[in-house]
Amino acid sequence: MYSFKNDYNQTCHPKIVEALKEIEDYQFSGYGLDEICDRAKTKINTALESNSDIHFLVGGTQTNLTVISYLLKPYQGVISVDTGHINVHETGAIEACGHKVISIISNDGKLKAKDVEDLIKSHYEDDNCEHCTMPGMVYISNPTELGTLYTKKELSDLYSVTKKYDIPLYLDGARLAYALSGLNNDIALNEYKNLVDVLYIGGTKCGALFGEAVVFNQSKLSKNFRYSMKQRGGMLAKGFLLGLQFDILFSDNLYYELGKHANDIAFVLNDELEKRNIKMFSKRYSNQLFLILNKKVIEALKEKYAFEYWSDVDENTACIRIVISWSTQKEKIFEFINDFDAICM
Amino acid sequence: MYSFKNDYNQTCHPKIVEALKEIEDYQFSGYGLDEICDRAKTKINTALESNSDIHFLVGGTQTNLTVISYLLKPYQGVISVDTGHINVHETGAIEACGHKVISIISNDGKLKAKDVEDLIKSHYEDDNCEHCTMPGMVYISNPTELGTLYTKKELSDLYSVTKKYDIPLYLDGARLAYALSGLNNDIALNEYKNLVDVLYIGGTKCGALFGEAVVFNQSKLSKNFRYSMKQRGGMLAKGFLLGLQFDILFSDNLYYELGKHANDIAFVLNDELEKRNIKMFSKRYSNQLFLILNKKVIEALKEKYAFEYWSDVDENTACIRIVISWSTQKEKIFEFINDFDAICM
Amino acid sequence: MYSFKNDYNQTCHPKIVEALKEIEDYQFSGYGLDEICDRAKTKINTALESNSDIHFLVGGTQTNLTVISYLLKPYQGVISVDTGHINVHETGAIEACGHKVISIISNDGKLKAKDVEDLIKSHYEDDNCEHCTMPGMVYISNPTELGTLYTKKELSDLYSVTKKYDIPLYLDGARLAYALSGLNNDIALNEYKNLVDVLYIGGTKCGALFGEAVVFNQSKLSKNFRYSMKQRGGMLAKGFLLGLQFDILFSDNLYYELGKHANDIAFVLNDELEKRNIKMFSKRYSNQLFLILNKKVIEALKEKYAFEYWSDVDENTACIRIVISWSTQKEKIFEFINDFDAICM
Amino acid sequence: MYSFKNDYNQTCHPKIVEALKEIEDYQFSGYGLDEICDRAKTKINTALESNSDIHFLVGGTQTNLTVISYLLKPYQGVISVDTGHINVHETGAIEACGHKVISIISNDGKLKAKDVEDLIKSHYEDDNCEHCTMPGMVYISNPTELGTLYTKKELSDLYSVTKKYDIPLYLDGARLAYALSGLNNDIALNEYKNLVDVLYIGGTKCGALFGEAVVFNQSKLSKNFRYSMKQRGGMLAKGFLLGLQFDILFSDNLYYELGKHANDIAFVLNDELEKRNIKMFSKRYSNQLFLILNKKVIEALKEKYAFEYWSDVDENTACIRIVISWSTQKEKIFEFINDFDAICM
Repeated sequence: MYSFKNDYNQTCHPKIVEALKEIEDYQFSGYGLDEICDRAKTKINTALESNSDIHFLVGGTQTNLTVISYLLKPYQGVISVDTGHINVHETGAIEACGHKVISIISNDGKLKAKDVEDLIKSHYEDDNCEHCTMPGMVYISNPTELGTLYTKKELSDLYSVTKKYDIPLYLDGARLAYALSGLNNDIALNEYKNLVDVLYIGGTKCGALFGEAVVFNQSKLSKNFRYSMKQRGGMLAKGFLLGLQFDILFSDNLYYELGKHANDIAFVLNDELEKRNIKMFSKRYSNQLFLILNKKVIEALKEKYAFEYWSDVDENTACIRIVISWSTQKEKIFEFINDFDAICM
Repeated sequence: MYSFKNDYNQTCHPKIVEALKEIEDYQFSGYGLDEICDRAKTKINTALESNSDIHFLVGGTQTNLTVISYLLKPYQGVISVDTGHINVHETGAIEACGHKVISIISNDGKLKAKDVEDLIKSHYEDDNCEHCTMPGMVYISNPTELGTLYTKKELSDLYSVTKKYDIPLYLDGARLAYALSGLNNDIALNEYKNLVDVLYIGGTKCGALFGEAVVFNQSKLSKNFRYSMKQRGGMLAKGFLLGLQFDILFSDNLYYELGKHANDIAFVLNDELEKRNIKMFSKRYSNQLFLILNKKVIEALKEKYAFEYWSDVDENTACIRIVISWSTQKEKIFEFINDFDAICM
Repeated sequence: MYSFKNDYNQTCHPKIVEALKEIEDYQFSGYGLDEICDRAKTKINTALESNSDIHFLVGGTQTNLTVISYLLKPYQGVISVDTGHINVHETGAIEACGHKVISIISNDGKLKAKDVEDLIKSHYEDDNCEHCTMPGMVYISNPTELGTLYTKKELSDLYSVTKKYDIPLYLDGARLAYALSGLNNDIALNEYKNLVDVLYIGGTKCGALFGEAVVFNQSKLSKNFRYSMKQRGGMLAKGFLLGLQFDILFSDNLYYELGKHANDIAFVLNDELEKRNIKMFSKRYSNQLFLILNKKVIEALKEKYAFEYWSDVDENTACIRIVISWSTQKEKIFEFINDFDAICM
Repeated sequence: MYSFKNDYNQTCHPKIVEALKEIEDYQFSGYGLDEICDRAKTKINTALESNSDIHFLVGGTQTNLTVISYLLKPYQGVISVDTGHINVHETGAIEACGHKVISIISNDGKLKAKDVEDLIKSHYEDDNCEHCTMPGMVYISNPTELGTLYTKKELSDLYSVTKKYDIPLYLDGARLAYALSGLNNDIALNEYKNLVDVLYIGGTKCGALFGEAVVFNQSKLSKNFRYSMKQRGGMLAKGFLLGLQFDILFSDNLYYELGKHANDIAFVLNDELEKRNIKMFSKRYSNQLFLILNKKVIEALKEKYAFEYWSDVDENTACIRIVISWSTQKEKIFEFINDFDAICM
């Protein structure tokens, strides 16, 4: 059984385990106040060509709930697409912190500047606006939960709207590595500082054991963030473990390379499937492929492969998600294609 | 500079890094639903001689807030000693989940059965009891934040009170390894199942990279706990990392041995200091020593050693905390004693 | 200027002010533990032909947030139609208590049994259901926010679904008086005990100064509700004021009569408008009329009447809401019709 | 049976019921956006000689939780004396909004400037201050829960400390009417604008049916307060009822007179009891008397009078609280004295 279920089913890039071994006799300060974390922050800022305030957390839901509840006032909510991770896959973590997720319907996982502006405008035009949740920030992810990518223009337009209404724009980069070398991607890492107020650079799904790096491009926003990190249970005692991993990921272009490895393979698989007239639910932009297949084919594939059943399409066909990871071996793709051909014959 | 500041300043027991290396080519299911986690749970249950429901979380504050907010009703609070970790060192994490920490003053870090019963009784005797937070569970830690240990009798009495009022007793075992071989400890690991409803077995401070194992001795209490784990940001994507660590810690008696290593060294240091007529703030029960020293001595020690300044005693003397860890090398104790003698001469 | 804006723009039925005068020399126990409250509860239970546990609160949002946060577990959310009051007009009050409002799209303000069942089933069929908010209760209102009414069959079907999944069904009866004599209404007051687990009988919009009566048809659900009332700021010090008002509303059939007064007038107005070929956004079921008018007519009407602008229909027409209240004078309807005719000529 | 249990056991001053009768044919805008509320706010500002931003809420706990949760950041707590209403008699309402009540022990119900400064200073001196709740505001009440009064000097010193650390000072004036003419009171109503940032002027305990007026002396603090009012369930639909009551209370010096009426009577009772060598738990400053009596005397008094049993003093004596209200009739005091003499003979 080989898994294409997600991009977090193997430990981590080997360099990280090696580095863990190397530091085993050293002592470090707790809670991320150590020299490895400092070094990692410097490396990230170098890659971002920025001077941002950076903090490390353990996982994605934790990061989202900590950042969002930290930034919002009690009567504010966060705007998200309906398919946004915070809206559907975090067990109401944002609401548990007291805030409504104000969802906007989107067909491609991306939030449109116009939709956000319309929503905010109509809020303030209502005489009884105080009877409704105040839109207090905007949440997006890139790549999105549907594997799509923002263009620089789309992101820039969105940022303009949030600036106009003076609310922060926050980008969930759980899979950011896979965006950087995604299809037609025109946003380089060093451009994010001018496109969002806060983002997190995902480690868990991009080659780390665990860990996410929260980047506040406006340091005035982050002044007391460590209080919220601790309060929400996100301040790792051995914070140096997080610094260690990001230090490695941001050395020798590794973070970019890991994403590119997956995208390249995903591209090969995508092409092979398209040659066989397999339809995709959405275009392949990054490391997630959404295949529309006959249900009998899906059943047969399940014997050797693990993947996520995404949704029914009609009585006979359904959509499955194939995730290619930083750790996926290229030969597995060809095995998959061979098995696929055998099934379809 | 050598640190006695805490028991989480080094990575982890070498076997854990080795094991990480060994599994680097394997794929695992996410979120703790994998075979390593299953194996680790079995080993813990074997050690506990129990059939408890076990879940893995990343850190202590996260574990406390997740368990406590999961168990309480909205109008209930949790009883704790005033020095309890949840009351003073978690940035109001419990309150952030909506619950009051009802604190009881204690001089030794331990909660007394009688004090708890008096508090609960007086709550229900009040005609306007609904104007006050209902006591909904009891939180204790062992070893306590002051390094003291519960006796079996004390814990059993406390448990009887909580049973009488039908509220759960929850034990924070962040440093449980150090309790097991603590001075005069009379509670074996396999006895906790009859002494508390829920406990967590600490990994972070006891030789793991990170991780805590929550043990529900009454499985009816834990039915939907995974929802809360996810909602509070505590469900690790690569949950198998937690299983891996507890599997190792609960093989070959390692968990016990790591605690004993520290306690043995702490005992030596304690004896040496007592020979020199150094007073202790409280008796040495486990791996934390609270030394009362002249402030000039403290200043001099700080040049070579890191430790926590606990509190002022009087104008000239203060209390410092020396934590001996699973990773502390015995020779460092003798170096410390030598340096201490040199300073005091 | 005459207002058809809502049903809470005048003080209260005159009998209530008289009664306030009559008790001015008496002393009462605080917090609703007085004999007037007891008497009011008995009268309500008589009207309901029930033996329900009844509590009084001050306003609708307060009641909704107190009941819902009291009934849900932390990881649960409440199902509501998208237009439900809790979803759109309470500033995120439910989320502020930690719970997601799980909205279902509806075109008529009513929740369909099948939609609820589909939602719950698909939740539990998901292997990763713990990554999503657990559906923990169902919220409906009758009349709905769109003025429509549930039939007994619809409500009964919905109740069956909630019973099947063992979650409470809660009915917001802010305007319940207007449902009782609504068009084609087939649910008598004494039938609600078999159709919902909890409901609130609205006073504020139905002739009281203020106040809502929460009725727990299953008393096991309400055991500690007074704690939540106090905690959420809803326990009125002079609770006897609430008892006094419900005592009067539930004497001599007054509650029913006040609703019928409004419905009768609304029916006259509706007929007159239909004679003039005015379209309604939805059929007139109770005291709210949704008129589709030319925008110029709306502008002209605004000179003499206050009403709520509901939504744009197209460039030239819009929908306005006319609320007929327990206190609306019949002659005002004819004045309105006359003015309307004058404008349209 | 005559009740000295509290100051909210009768309806309200007769003028309020009269006024309710007078407006019965009028229509008003909802949610406090009406001309009566405007007039009341003007009158209060006239009395305060201020230009403060004023909002009306229904009850004390509701007011406290709404104001405090509105002003605090998520990681902040509110400082209060241990006996503060928010700390002991609101069922953890503040914690339910996510915030710790940081309590300071006080023997007289008053918070001392020095204690507050020590607490804040020691917070920021701690290297790990982010592991502790940040002190974010200060809560006091005047009169306090023990009936004592702040002097202008004490309040001014406290205000200086909060200004120094840039956190708001909030005063709970549930019984403010009784402070104004209290013993040795040296703070006039028009001085509060320079002594606290936010206060609420209590109506419920001072002659209104219900209602509290929140006064923001710094309008920058209150910008979005109406959102929080709505979200916490405190925005009364018929807000004009609140305006009506405060309009009356702040006409013809009525608010002051109602307090003085009670204080005058309380003073007579106090003197009579002192003549009989009855000891008081604390000096009589306002309308609450704390009598230390033989338990047999207490039992005998209970046959004719209701009052609160405060606390045991020793085996034979206890403290009871006698509250004199705006509505207490003077002759009842003499009856009480007579009965008391009869019992003691």
